[in-house]
Amino acid sequence: MAELDPRIKEVKDLIEFCPDFPKPGIVFQNLFPVLRNPKVFQGLIDVLVEDIKSKHPDVDVIIGLDSRGFLFGPLIALALNVAFVPVRKKGKLPGETHKVEYSLEYGKDSCEIQKNSIQPGQKVIIIDDLLATGGTMKAACDLMEAAEAKILSCMVVIELKFLDGAKKLKYPLLSYIS
Amino acid sequence: MAELDPRIKEVKDLIEFCPDFPKPGIVFQNLFPVLRNPKVFQGLIDVLVEDIKSKHPDVDVIIGLDSRGFLFGPLIALALNVAFVPVRKKGKLPGETHKVEYSLEYGKDSCEIQKNSIQPGQKVIIIDDLLATGGTMKAACDLMEAAEAKILSCMVVIELKFLDGAKKLKYPLLSYIS
Repeated sequence: MAELDPRIKEVKDLIEFCPDFPKPGIVFQNLFPVLRNPKVFQGLIDVLVEDIKSKHPDVDVIIGLDSRGFLFGPLIALALNVAFVPVRKKGKLPGETHKVEYSLEYGKDSCEIQKNSIQPGQKVIIIDDLLATGGTMKAACDLMEAAEAKILSCMVVIELKFLDGAKKLKYPLLSYIS
Repeated sequence: MAELDPRIKEVKDLIEFCPDFPKPGIVFQNLFPVLRNPKVFQGLIDVLVEDIKSKHPDVDVIIGLDSRGFLFGPLIALALNVAFVPVRKKGKLPGETHKVEYSLEYGKDSCEIQKNSIQPGQKVIIIDDLLATGGTMKAACDLMEAAEAKILSCMVVIELKFLDGAKKLKYPLLSYIS
């Protein structure tokens, strides 16, 4: 196994484990302490950006999932000098949208993108903070397919491997902490 | 009246006006086209960061409001090398929280911060994309007061001046487009 990047080690050390949140039996992993430490937060963004530059230098659009993906996506997009496009929860976007319904860890939901926000054939990477059962990420992939975008990869900071979420995805997943 | 910064002019030119969204009579101002243009998006962030550096160089924490404030707050915090702390909608944060209820343009809601996320006396700037009636921003100010933070300023990209939201706030408001 490859040695952990020291910048990821610093991120890992700041994650807060919150048992029984948002409901009994679930251990919530809180990344917000990382965002309170600009050195560690910048180090995390640098790792993600370097990884994209080396593996997917042809990316056109960074897709961020509502709402914790919004914390990382714009930073990554601007560091790469590419577009940022949000996937939003239902009812938040004006105009014509693509829409997908999905089940998630704690219930049911649906998500949308604006139809004019991605051009067919654009190469995208979809970003969220954490992959649990993979329902939200799968829905975002379905949205990208509806928009005829080309998904290069999905990317999350934390992957809860025991939940096997990556198996729901037809695309590669980059994750840094599990 | 001061001349508009050319970088803000570029932002203004990209804003999409969406009549009758999310409900009849409301014109939604969509900033997402700006985020699809990395040059204009970076220019906007640069203006906000320069303004904070000149007016509030002593800021300790950038506060971002759930969820569109998340798109701007982390970029500004890292450019200033300071902490980012989210205000979240109810039920999203583990552990002990401060909580405030408020009325907003389209209904009622409440928001929270983690008690350990801000230290008493820390100097904060609260960031959101848009100020409408000011209910959400006022609630965020109340949360900061509950946490005994010192509010230097509120900051939004767009201020809908005809709604008089700034009058609800006891603190200065920086806005760039109205």
